[in-house]
Amino acid sequence: MHEDAIAAFAPATVANVGAGFDILGFALHQPGDIVVARFNQVGTVRITQLTGNSSKLPREASLNTAGVAVIKLLEHLSIRQGIDLELHKRMPLGSGLGSSAASAVAAVVAANALLGSPLKKIDLLPFAMEGERVACGAAHADNAAPSLLGGFVLIRSYAPLDVVELNTPERLYAVVVHPHIEVKTQDARDILKKTLLLKDAIVQWGNIAGLVAGLMKSDYALIGRSLSDVIVEPVRAILIPGFSDVKAAALRAGALGCSISGSGPSVFALVCDARIAETVAQAMQDAFAEQGISSDRYISKINQEGAYVLPYSQYAAL
Amino acid sequence: MHEDAIAAFAPATVANVGAGFDILGFALHQPGDIVVARFNQVGTVRITQLTGNSSKLPREASLNTAGVAVIKLLEHLSIRQGIDLELHKRMPLGSGLGSSAASAVAAVVAANALLGSPLKKIDLLPFAMEGERVACGAAHADNAAPSLLGGFVLIRSYAPLDVVELNTPERLYAVVVHPHIEVKTQDARDILKKTLLLKDAIVQWGNIAGLVAGLMKSDYALIGRSLSDVIVEPVRAILIPGFSDVKAAALRAGALGCSISGSGPSVFALVCDARIAETVAQAMQDAFAEQGISSDRYISKINQEGAYVLPYSQYAAL
Repeated sequence: MHEDAIAAFAPATVANVGAGFDILGFALHQPGDIVVARFNQVGTVRITQLTGNSSKLPREASLNTAGVAVIKLLEHLSIRQGIDLELHKRMPLGSGLGSSAASAVAAVVAANALLGSPLKKIDLLPFAMEGERVACGAAHADNAAPSLLGGFVLIRSYAPLDVVELNTPERLYAVVVHPHIEVKTQDARDILKKTLLLKDAIVQWGNIAGLVAGLMKSDYALIGRSLSDVIVEPVRAILIPGFSDVKAAALRAGALGCSISGSGPSVFALVCDARIAETVAQAMQDAFAEQGISSDRYISKINQEGAYVLPYSQYAAL
Repeated sequence: MHEDAIAAFAPATVANVGAGFDILGFALHQPGDIVVARFNQVGTVRITQLTGNSSKLPREASLNTAGVAVIKLLEHLSIRQGIDLELHKRMPLGSGLGSSAASAVAAVVAANALLGSPLKKIDLLPFAMEGERVACGAAHADNAAPSLLGGFVLIRSYAPLDVVELNTPERLYAVVVHPHIEVKTQDARDILKKTLLLKDAIVQWGNIAGLVAGLMKSDYALIGRSLSDVIVEPVRAILIPGFSDVKAAALRAGALGCSISGSGPSVFALVCDARIAETVAQAMQDAFAEQGISSDRYISKINQEGAYVLPYSQYAAL
């Protein structure tokens, strides 16, 4: 049984990254999701097991992010083969860490490997995005692309899809603090204004340009100065009690910059030293605690590998 | 007399560069302005000579871009020394090529050298920007910074001023075609809408991020795909008869991309081969000619040096 099972891990991701609303994301090492794929004789895609933080997820494959991604992959390949998926959800749902993207990415990476790798990694992205469409109502790629590819990934354009892998500076650490409050992705989207002032847009594109330049040059100070979002963060911050205190605490503790991870409620900071990362994480958690909010923290170098296939033996030991 | 005269050249520049409205520019080798600076005994800054395309420029130093830049420089240095300036205007006014910036930059570079170079080149930028304020009503830096420093320059932020020098890909050529029509900078600004749709802003910041990534990676195809402006170009294009034909002709002839230079009416294209540059320039001029509009053209590698001091002997021979 073990021999024909393939497991894949796909990591959590931080989307938006300050000024890069809808176009930029990067990958963490942990947390992440694991999907195990096996051929079945039924001829359809099934979700046969859901473990971890998965109680709210649909078991029906056509409604499940991971299921849809594999269904679309099989359709594209014109393969009428049934596949069973186990989804081991090892990260929080609705945290702003790209949970649905990680499930979809792990599923297509596992299924592709099971099928003998007919597609290259990058070519799996559109199917993972179809999984995102089920979860979020829109086929976003700013979590799925970095979860798949690793590193900092720019979605230059959606039509046509144009994915650009950026440089990841060697010393960069990400601190992510996940407060135990709920922010619905849809609410975080609905709260945004449909229009903005040209003068604010100019500030925003100065910052995204600066952030990309800082990443490409490994200029940590420039990354810090550019990690500023004058459009989305001020609006979404009201959904996260104490956000301004958490951000101030992160900066005081030595973070290069700090903003909301994806649609929140997780807050991330970028840091260029492992020890400072610990201090920053503690300061951010303390600031949430002062609001009476408990939280989890993740400290990680930027994950440059993205999703990968696990030997089944290794998966079983995880 | 020759010994105590300093001449400086400052090049024309292309601002905005597609999606980089107000934040990005690059320098050409030609055309450009020359300013000669000499001490005088009067104790004030004077414009003693205006040559070239300068008939519309004020002779009063406090109203002249070059004069104001030097007045502000002397104030900053607390130097009560009179300086005479000759402005040799070797580029068209109101062309969208940063004419006022070139005058202001050449003036501060010449004056600083005359004073024994108390300031580094980058530190001259705020005074050149004061010159821009007189000419345009706002202290823009997206022409002045590349004219001063050369290459592609990002103005990440105006408050505080944060100037980032980007990489210039080795094989990149700029083609600039200046049609003989007038577009007032103020009109080109007034015509812009004060608000924009968030969905358009997202497209725009995807493109500016892609353009910066393309420049930093010397990825010519990515530069081409990113050279797209969905906010400003569609509005300003109506001030340039035949713009869409000119752009289409440039792309057909092999340009990576094509857009409006600054506030127009000049149109620029980026090209990655000297021979293609010639073809592109001809195609663009032909397209303007079909509208009954004559034009000048400039073909140049990207100027990576920016403004520089000329030996007076060399200036005199120009």
